[in-house]
Amino acid sequence: MTHAPAPDDTVPSPRFDTPFLDTLETLFRWRRDIRRFRTDPLPEGMVEDLVRQAALAPSVGHAQPWRFVSIVDPAKRAAITANFERACAEAGAIYDGPRAEAYARLKLSGLREAPVHLAVFCDEATPAGHGLGRQTMPETLRYSVIGAIQQLWLAARARDVGVGWVSILDPAAAHRDLGAPASWALVAYLCVGWPEPDTDSDTPELVRAGWQDPVDEARHLFVW
Amino acid sequence: MTHAPAPDDTVPSPRFDTPFLDTLETLFRWRRDIRRFRTDPLPEGMVEDLVRQAALAPSVGHAQPWRFVSIVDPAKRAAITANFERACAEAGAIYDGPRAEAYARLKLSGLREAPVHLAVFCDEATPAGHGLGRQTMPETLRYSVIGAIQQLWLAARARDVGVGWVSILDPAAAHRDLGAPASWALVAYLCVGWPEPDTDSDTPELVRAGWQDPVDEARHLFVW
Repeated sequence: MTHAPAPDDTVPSPRFDTPFLDTLETLFRWRRDIRRFRTDPLPEGMVEDLVRQAALAPSVGHAQPWRFVSIVDPAKRAAITANFERACAEAGAIYDGPRAEAYARLKLSGLREAPVHLAVFCDEATPAGHGLGRQTMPETLRYSVIGAIQQLWLAARARDVGVGWVSILDPAAAHRDLGAPASWALVAYLCVGWPEPDTDSDTPELVRAGWQDPVDEARHLFVW
Repeated sequence: MTHAPAPDDTVPSPRFDTPFLDTLETLFRWRRDIRRFRTDPLPEGMVEDLVRQAALAPSVGHAQPWRFVSIVDPAKRAAITANFERACAEAGAIYDGPRAEAYARLKLSGLREAPVHLAVFCDEATPAGHGLGRQTMPETLRYSVIGAIQQLWLAARARDVGVGWVSILDPAAAHRDLGAPASWALVAYLCVGWPEPDTDSDTPELVRAGWQDPVDEARHLFVW
């Protein structure tokens, strides 16, 4: 265990003004899950930049358990795409009637077009954090990875870069096909790239598609 | 199922300029997990505002499964505080030597001071989203709640409001003591309020305390 240097209290605290708060809310409103990507590459260094922003997120015990992996091996990318297409077809079996037709019309991933595939893992065996804060709720280690992903998503949208989360995957097969270490849990698989222009909207795609309207605000906050 | 109106494409897409990107990174850097709160109340409407910002987060199938509950009942607050203090003492048993002394010095929650306690649940039984995107990785429903919490955290810091995540809790006892519906899973318990001035730093508290240094950046991003 090291002893930290005294914090540098000469750095002045930032103030965030009203125009910034307004733009931050605009960012929250316009951040979308993107499934329609252009195929051209992102500028060099962009993924590194985004992961640096993500890694400023909080983590339980400061364990920083996120492991972002850019998947470039064509065989691995093809295995994930096939995994998704299988899982997506199987998941469709739970719907019938108009809902099944609506499901068939949804585009649920940009795996074939997105230039960047980012697999995101939680390193469950990391010694960092020394177990602090996760003896009774060990799931908080994975939750820390989600906070980082959310931050990456915002940083990307602010740079006009699109991110789409592909959750329709058999995670055990994906873990095996990617050759991930046994102690790493697959938390998310992201497509990243320039979005098609018609994806730009302040209305979630699933609202636009008539799949799910916003939930009544009264369901968000309760007082007990 | 409803059919959505055509999206209003007359709303111009926002552009986020370099000063905004810089300030966003500053917000990421200065967002802290706060355990030292003043006891005076937040302005009326602040918690509602923060939850509105949180609820702009993405969610699997647009299920919006987050349920934020402001805990005001003194008996419930006392039960959670006792739960934390018990769990915190028990968790300390895993350390010995200097690490045990360091653990004893850490302040791990602001439950006794913070004016607002916010329990955050995932409504596992919500019909919203129609199960979309969570047949193979059902944990993504809870992950959606974490994205909302991360957004609340950022919105709060931008307003100088502190948020501290108390993860050292027996979640089953907390669920029972709060009287939560059976289908709601406790995901997080947050303290919210004005932070003590000396908490303001761009260095995580656990780094300042010598508990855990930043992990090498090379552990954040891999290429396979």
